[in-house]
Amino acid sequence: MTRRLHLNAFLMNTGHHEASWRLPESDPYAHVSLAHYVELARTAERGTFDSLFLADGPQLWNNLAQRPAGALEPLTLLTALATATEHIGLIATASTSYNSPYNLARKFASLDIVSGGRAGWNIVTTAGAEAARNFGLDAEPAHAERYARAAEFVDVALKLWDSWEDDAILADKAAGVWGDDSRIHPPRHRGTYFSVEGALNVPRTPQGYPLLVQAGSSADGKVFAARYAEAVFTAQQTLEDARSFYADIKSRTRLAGRDPEHLKVLPGIVPVIGSTEAEARAAEQVLEDHIVHTHGVRRLEDLLRLEPGTLDLDGPLPDDLPPESAIEGAKSRYTLIVELARRESLTVRQLIGRLGGGRGHLTFTGTPEQVADEIETWFTRGAADGFNIMPPVLPSGLEAFVDHVVPILRERGLLRTAYGPRQTLRERYGLRRPRNQYVSDAVDVPGPATAGAPAALTRI
Amino acid sequence: MTRRLHLNAFLMNTGHHEASWRLPESDPYAHVSLAHYVELARTAERGTFDSLFLADGPQLWNNLAQRPAGALEPLTLLTALATATEHIGLIATASTSYNSPYNLARKFASLDIVSGGRAGWNIVTTAGAEAARNFGLDAEPAHAERYARAAEFVDVALKLWDSWEDDAILADKAAGVWGDDSRIHPPRHRGTYFSVEGALNVPRTPQGYPLLVQAGSSADGKVFAARYAEAVFTAQQTLEDARSFYADIKSRTRLAGRDPEHLKVLPGIVPVIGSTEAEARAAEQVLEDHIVHTHGVRRLEDLLRLEPGTLDLDGPLPDDLPPESAIEGAKSRYTLIVELARRESLTVRQLIGRLGGGRGHLTFTGTPEQVADEIETWFTRGAADGFNIMPPVLPSGLEAFVDHVVPILRERGLLRTAYGPRQTLRERYGLRRPRNQYVSDAVDVPGPATAGAPAALTRI
Repeated sequence: MTRRLHLNAFLMNTGHHEASWRLPESDPYAHVSLAHYVELARTAERGTFDSLFLADGPQLWNNLAQRPAGALEPLTLLTALATATEHIGLIATASTSYNSPYNLARKFASLDIVSGGRAGWNIVTTAGAEAARNFGLDAEPAHAERYARAAEFVDVALKLWDSWEDDAILADKAAGVWGDDSRIHPPRHRGTYFSVEGALNVPRTPQGYPLLVQAGSSADGKVFAARYAEAVFTAQQTLEDARSFYADIKSRTRLAGRDPEHLKVLPGIVPVIGSTEAEARAAEQVLEDHIVHTHGVRRLEDLLRLEPGTLDLDGPLPDDLPPESAIEGAKSRYTLIVELARRESLTVRQLIGRLGGGRGHLTFTGTPEQVADEIETWFTRGAADGFNIMPPVLPSGLEAFVDHVVPILRERGLLRTAYGPRQTLRERYGLRRPRNQYVSDAVDVPGPATAGAPAALTRI
Repeated sequence: MTRRLHLNAFLMNTGHHEASWRLPESDPYAHVSLAHYVELARTAERGTFDSLFLADGPQLWNNLAQRPAGALEPLTLLTALATATEHIGLIATASTSYNSPYNLARKFASLDIVSGGRAGWNIVTTAGAEAARNFGLDAEPAHAERYARAAEFVDVALKLWDSWEDDAILADKAAGVWGDDSRIHPPRHRGTYFSVEGALNVPRTPQGYPLLVQAGSSADGKVFAARYAEAVFTAQQTLEDARSFYADIKSRTRLAGRDPEHLKVLPGIVPVIGSTEAEARAAEQVLEDHIVHTHGVRRLEDLLRLEPGTLDLDGPLPDDLPPESAIEGAKSRYTLIVELARRESLTVRQLIGRLGGGRGHLTFTGTPEQVADEIETWFTRGAADGFNIMPPVLPSGLEAFVDHVVPILRERGLLRTAYGPRQTLRERYGLRRPRNQYVSDAVDVPGPATAGAPAALTRI
């Protein structure tokens, strides 16, 4: 079978460019508009994307003056989108540092059932003291500790998702026996961070459990991804860096005893599309012209752990920045930004312009043909299994991609032309339904979503 | 204005009777079927109910042999139902003992926005060691401590829901100023159980916050209800008991400095409906005949804190049961059951039959006319502001109520004949949108759901 691109639509209110909300077309209330997100989800489905994705953190990001803040909680929004779509996967970010495994496992299991096997979980450890202070802590937990907790969290969640065998429900009305208690497996977990005794109160789901996604590219993050992730979102600025990341994560996956094909690498790309190059550049310029630089400086200082007022808008970054090892937050993003500024000798103003589009993700400006070329190059040259598409402006940027880039990718045989028969998200990513860890003779078989299981478990 | 009944549909898979799943009509996979719940929600909306309601606990209730176990997580299910309905309120149970205020406040705020102001929260403290052991505890916290935590939890949640003023969003594209940071009020809460520093990452919602519902009738529960609850669900076996509960809770509400009209009392009723009395009795008998008594005995022993094998199916309850004060779990339910058995000199078998329908809630068997009479009597004689309708079998029991009892209640002027113009759940219950605690000059005014607010905040 031809190797095909996996496309994920990363949705974020009026778009990924920080100034997108200021454009005349943009709805400044998009962040709380279900109608807005329904439209985006249906556009992505028209483009036969594998999935859509929502980022998240349990804190109020950035100040209100700067740009839209706040959002609908991702699992709530994805549940609503599940009822408005039919095929597309639904990936929500949720934190292992500020949730309980029992509560979160239930929510993802419920979304997987309601969506007919389309749930995905972007596992994050959540950087920053602001989030920590919303959950009874004074400072954020250390980076390594957050990842240790994340690993135990996922282990417990996997036990919970497997705690019902697929055939635990007997439904024997005549005998008055609804289920078989011997096919329930309470985790009885006692670990460093969690004690979870009982079985989940949701049956095993169409996918077994949600597609596991990860997005941290630090050393800890890569170890974690190699062990658990089925898809990895990553920010890469150059083909070279992306290829080296790709080779590294695939080799780590192999070393972790897994098939590297079972982990898909999806770099982010912010496509600024115009019917000519000049048009695309002009669109980019309009966005840059709407950036309010005082906000950008403050945010950059925050990210680089500098005192307010340190940075000079028209000067370079200071030479004496701390090494990545001193950063407890988003380590890999920190290094990427510092390297980008130094590699291209950018002033602070220029750096803010470059980050305005995708916060460190690759911004690519050009015609649909050029965007498709870039995607094909990365895909065929060992840098990507697909892309995390991050339109600078929404909904128009997603529409431009679906209407103009998708047809080219299809023509080149890189992307499906239509969804096949009903598939789970995991099947769409070319992965198999996981076996149940408590069933010794279990084989990798299509699960209830595709086999002849009761309708209740597959689809409304 | 005429005083009108408030009706709430308490939905639970195949119905409230424990044997309901065994009937030929019942779908044994109803507990995970969105289609089943969509049908129920639409039926309740046809009956112009105020709201529907889902119970919950973060543990696997009862063994699988006995009856359907597990469920879709309530906030997930209600979000999906929000997109399938237009008017009906959506009340989810969620625990203050096993959630974080920041996470839960976000979820209810998101549901309130997605549903256009129809969210309600049944605040529970969650009895039982089983739930505790899923969250790192060895035993359940003491009853009084659970309620102390619940009070602080709600206080924090109220601060979070008020942390955005209604007009915090300016959307000034020309000036590049999206919001006004001076209208954001971080809780900076440091209490006994919680520390929560920052503002919520969801704007203030159509209702301000979800309708607050409470269902515990212990002394602690009543103190809590008088302080916070806008609606109270309660289990009452006799008109007399219900009247005394009603008078007590209303007087406590007055003493707490609140208008007793702002707390609605809704006893549960399990209506077994037949077109004649004989038909209704026969339907009840069919359900009782499907009870598996060994399960019932085990559950009763568990509830009464007795060793397995203590109870004699055809004997009375033992005389030496512990007093309510020794029970750390569901105190008021315990007393109600013991009193019911003693008042009516029931054998264990008879008690199980009586509890099989509504787990301590009033079971009423009769014609639609008789059901309407019973409801009217309680409503007009100071025992209820409305009812929590708990059909023994679903969907048929809800259909019978809507098709045969609702028309009688409407004819008598006790129930609305149609939904009025778009209202929030709180408005439907005759309550006003709460003022924001951080806005000193705030007045009780209709909120964004009914005033001229941006469409994004009111309805998709």
